[in-house]
Amino acid sequence: MTIRSVLVTGSNRGIGLEIIKTFLNRSPPPEKLFATCRDPDGPRSEELKNLASKHNNLVILQLDATNPDSIKKAVKNVEEHLEGAGLNLLLNNAGIMSHVNLDNVDSEDMINVFKTNVVGPMQVSQAFYPLLKESADARSQEPLSCKKAAVVNISSVLGSIERTSVTYDPAKQVVSYRISKAALNMLTKCQAEGYRTDGILCTAVHPGWVKTDMGTEGALLTTEQSANGILKVLGSLTEKENGILMAWDGKVIPW
Amino acid sequence: MTIRSVLVTGSNRGIGLEIIKTFLNRSPPPEKLFATCRDPDGPRSEELKNLASKHNNLVILQLDATNPDSIKKAVKNVEEHLEGAGLNLLLNNAGIMSHVNLDNVDSEDMINVFKTNVVGPMQVSQAFYPLLKESADARSQEPLSCKKAAVVNISSVLGSIERTSVTYDPAKQVVSYRISKAALNMLTKCQAEGYRTDGILCTAVHPGWVKTDMGTEGALLTTEQSANGILKVLGSLTEKENGILMAWDGKVIPW
Repeated sequence: MTIRSVLVTGSNRGIGLEIIKTFLNRSPPPEKLFATCRDPDGPRSEELKNLASKHNNLVILQLDATNPDSIKKAVKNVEEHLEGAGLNLLLNNAGIMSHVNLDNVDSEDMINVFKTNVVGPMQVSQAFYPLLKESADARSQEPLSCKKAAVVNISSVLGSIERTSVTYDPAKQVVSYRISKAALNMLTKCQAEGYRTDGILCTAVHPGWVKTDMGTEGALLTTEQSANGILKVLGSLTEKENGILMAWDGKVIPW
Repeated sequence: MTIRSVLVTGSNRGIGLEIIKTFLNRSPPPEKLFATCRDPDGPRSEELKNLASKHNNLVILQLDATNPDSIKKAVKNVEEHLEGAGLNLLLNNAGIMSHVNLDNVDSEDMINVFKTNVVGPMQVSQAFYPLLKESADARSQEPLSCKKAAVVNISSVLGSIERTSVTYDPAKQVVSYRISKAALNMLTKCQAEGYRTDGILCTAVHPGWVKTDMGTEGALLTTEQSANGILKVLGSLTEKENGILMAWDGKVIPW
């Protein structure tokens, strides 16, 4: 499946960066690939910059998902680059995790994690909605797909309430992260219900437990395995997968 | 089932007030019934005050679930009233709803609703944990129940991601409320996992669609029907119902 235009938030490292690389290596790659991050000029964005120097279709943009002005500027930039075409796929990947448990989690941490992991994707989706709708309208006869128009939110199995009895580790609690991902799953479901008639697919994806700063070296998957899996999942999404939580390996995770 | 001591937040109106009345009418009623609200001296707390003038076991306390100082003071007051005994049941009932949809929901509303509906219950549960633990320890040989020690979070079927495809009404979206209740459900599940070994039961309860300011006059249930159902549910909770979402009529709701 060829997805013409893709935007990935939080793309300067971890899974976001690997998704960018994987998209670039496809044949054909997307015509326009927007890699956004909070600080594209910072030391942690070097790899992204190197990639952009080799790939004309890669556009790096500043986007802080918690800052409305930053989002607005990014939308304007993307719009200019797309030259009248819509955006096919918005991948809300930016997210944070903090290691807090039931005893020491506090209001500040709860709100901070919620802002980045839930309010961020909500605001970014709102802002890019017109460009997604444009893409959906241009392919109005086609069924829902990432090739047409889609919002994909990177969630986590740790946001599955059903699975918590299995995934809960008293020694490694991430209460505020879990809560934010359950909230993001509900946002995804609301978007799936609300945007379906607009022709925009909305799905949540669990990237697996990945060797990143967040996942640590002890994780099960390499970023390559996760990103390859995610791209395969993206290509497989249809009306049937609208508003669900799917793992990198294509398995459906209960809420 | 006799629950010796109960605390209900947001108890000056709606379902909270009706739960207080229903507890008072039981025979025997709780020895100590703590009715808390943000503004016990305000005009909307008159009915609660009238009740307190007739019932010696009813104690009205100021508690703003989003204000740590207010919570701390309430804990101190409750501790004094309990005279060394623990608290059996904490009922996190206080909550707000705002009528926003995917288009007009903004960061401020998302965070505001999340603060009251999720961070509040989290902080209140943390603060009352020592008193709940005291009660659980005093009955350490008994199985989990509201008679022993319990946190019950008033949630909603609108927080069920699974049910969203059925409950979603494009004309009456309450996106931030839904997101907050899905988040509260995850908090409940984490509490259920974390507090189980302490002997504290944690469950989420859906009060039904009730004729209150929040539910409007068009709702299906009277506050009496809902509160009676909830008290019956509270009496029925065992280890099996730890960490689930149960409706006022005893039916289990999927996440």
